[in-house]
Amino acid sequence: MSQTGFSRFNQWSHWMEGKGLESDIVLSSRIRLARNLRQLPFPHRLDESQAETTLARLEETLQAIHDRWHLDFYRLAEVSPLERQVLVEKHLVSPQLVQEPVRYQAVAIDPRESISIMINEEDHLRLQVVLPALSLQEAWHVANRVDDALEEHLDFAFDQKWGYLTACPTNLGTGMRASVMVHLPALVLMRQVAQVFTTLSQLGMVARGLYGEGTDALGNIFQISNQVSLGLSEEEFLHNLSVVAQQVVGSERHARQHLAREAGVRLADRVARAYGILTHARILSSDEALRLLSEVKLGADLGIVPALSRASFAQLAVLTQPGFLQLKAGRALNPLERDELRAKLIREQLLGEAA
Amino acid sequence: MSQTGFSRFNQWSHWMEGKGLESDIVLSSRIRLARNLRQLPFPHRLDESQAETTLARLEETLQAIHDRWHLDFYRLAEVSPLERQVLVEKHLVSPQLVQEPVRYQAVAIDPRESISIMINEEDHLRLQVVLPALSLQEAWHVANRVDDALEEHLDFAFDQKWGYLTACPTNLGTGMRASVMVHLPALVLMRQVAQVFTTLSQLGMVARGLYGEGTDALGNIFQISNQVSLGLSEEEFLHNLSVVAQQVVGSERHARQHLAREAGVRLADRVARAYGILTHARILSSDEALRLLSEVKLGADLGIVPALSRASFAQLAVLTQPGFLQLKAGRALNPLERDELRAKLIREQLLGEAA
Repeated sequence: MSQTGFSRFNQWSHWMEGKGLESDIVLSSRIRLARNLRQLPFPHRLDESQAETTLARLEETLQAIHDRWHLDFYRLAEVSPLERQVLVEKHLVSPQLVQEPVRYQAVAIDPRESISIMINEEDHLRLQVVLPALSLQEAWHVANRVDDALEEHLDFAFDQKWGYLTACPTNLGTGMRASVMVHLPALVLMRQVAQVFTTLSQLGMVARGLYGEGTDALGNIFQISNQVSLGLSEEEFLHNLSVVAQQVVGSERHARQHLAREAGVRLADRVARAYGILTHARILSSDEALRLLSEVKLGADLGIVPALSRASFAQLAVLTQPGFLQLKAGRALNPLERDELRAKLIREQLLGEAA
Repeated sequence: MSQTGFSRFNQWSHWMEGKGLESDIVLSSRIRLARNLRQLPFPHRLDESQAETTLARLEETLQAIHDRWHLDFYRLAEVSPLERQVLVEKHLVSPQLVQEPVRYQAVAIDPRESISIMINEEDHLRLQVVLPALSLQEAWHVANRVDDALEEHLDFAFDQKWGYLTACPTNLGTGMRASVMVHLPALVLMRQVAQVFTTLSQLGMVARGLYGEGTDALGNIFQISNQVSLGLSEEEFLHNLSVVAQQVVGSERHARQHLAREAGVRLADRVARAYGILTHARILSSDEALRLLSEVKLGADLGIVPALSRASFAQLAVLTQPGFLQLKAGRALNPLERDELRAKLIREQLLGEAA
């Protein structure tokens, strides 16, 4: 897979479009289903021949359902390191999938980048559907149909008592993890986010950073997901998560109103400065850009600075990432070149200048 | 003197207009002459009756030459503390003159605020002429003529050997101090300013901060003046200071070119961010405003950010000062109100918005 052939990945994904229910706070909704093939060991215990068998069988299956789901199959060994990095930055695959060696790993992705299937990550197959805003039911609906299509061709490991069998016991049962990606700048500013997350954990939910477990909440973006997948039906899990997401959205809205009322000019100063810097800086690191974009988004939502009219916050957040930048540039860039291009692209997006 | 009557002082002074020789680096040129009345002790040794006599005699004299020089006379006891502060901020009087008690202190100022006469500061009379840019000869020419006019009415303490007698021996001789106010952001950025000032002191010159002896070089603005006034004629001193000023200007220009060449995008980033913050911040402290204005001025001179078209750097620097701001507002402001008004006025000046 040449870099040119992969150029479809230098566009924004459907899930980043920033429209839909609670879309000012909920960036995206994601359903992930873990599935394994019966009569084959889990990926970490596969020998070479078994790994190749798994890979070949899944490739065949995806070929068989291609007319319906348009999932293009890429062996990661044939994907450049830069392209793999972009897949992670766009949340189409997990960081774990692209860790070397990637000889038996693959991914299948649809043209809108809403559906992706990771092959030989922790499980043989992980199906992911991501949609914009708060749309867990819609994402589940799509995931369920793709899962059905796959099951017509594959025999998944399933136990009457335990449900879908998975490499890690926390995924047993439905094999489902659902998550919403939320932007919580006001809760962070008011130092209330830890308290909100404590409440979440009591409800069986967990909050993580931008790129999942063990990563920082860059740009005040968090992923909230169900911690276990056993004991309830998919619909029950989704209902619970939707309710929790709505509560978090309510807390964030409340915090924003409080800030606007109490912090007044100090908040306006902070977000206006962030806007001033983003529209003028010639050098921007990824972390600084994301931090300032988060403040500008808050300010735009509160009507203090111009709205983000040309790109959604999610799009701008991905635009800050080093891999995506280099795919945009069409070549490898040194750190200073990246910081310059990042500043230029963000400036152009915010000001609506011609590229 | 009511605040309303003093409202002429909420305008910019002629010396701030930012035009003339080397005006991108030299903000102003100043001549100050120290004079004392014969047969009266120096101000710090005057008794009440003598102090009143001095004051009355000088008021009379200024009245006598009013038709020619239009110097309006203000007893500082009748000037509000806020108005006194503004006189200092505009460099029309020294900080020492307005220190309480001000019972026998006065000032006379012409409408363009080019000429000011401090009464009962360290000496009975200190005549100051300030003009924009590098214009020491012109300032000396004006000062000399006002001095001649005063001498038609007053008998100054003068000794054939020591020249004009002054309260402090460093002012003996011509009684003259000449200075130029220079903006040296590139020399400061390149950490070369200390070296330049060491050279100055070897030439009998001294560099001080924005508001004279013992003050910081806020906004990278320095005053360079002759250290002694004895042993040379006024013209010789002025010639020497002009030559030195030109050398400093040359060093600053060289440093700017070097920075533009070597620092390139990093310099552009720094000044563009300063411009972005100044045109967006809602709260600005005096120190931050002056620091950022200094960077914006450098950037404007180098063509990186828009030129300061509506106000000169000197005007903007005075606009950052707390007293002047309150005179503009027409009332006392608390610190946050000042920081807000400062941000608003600077933003409007930089963007050319209607006030």
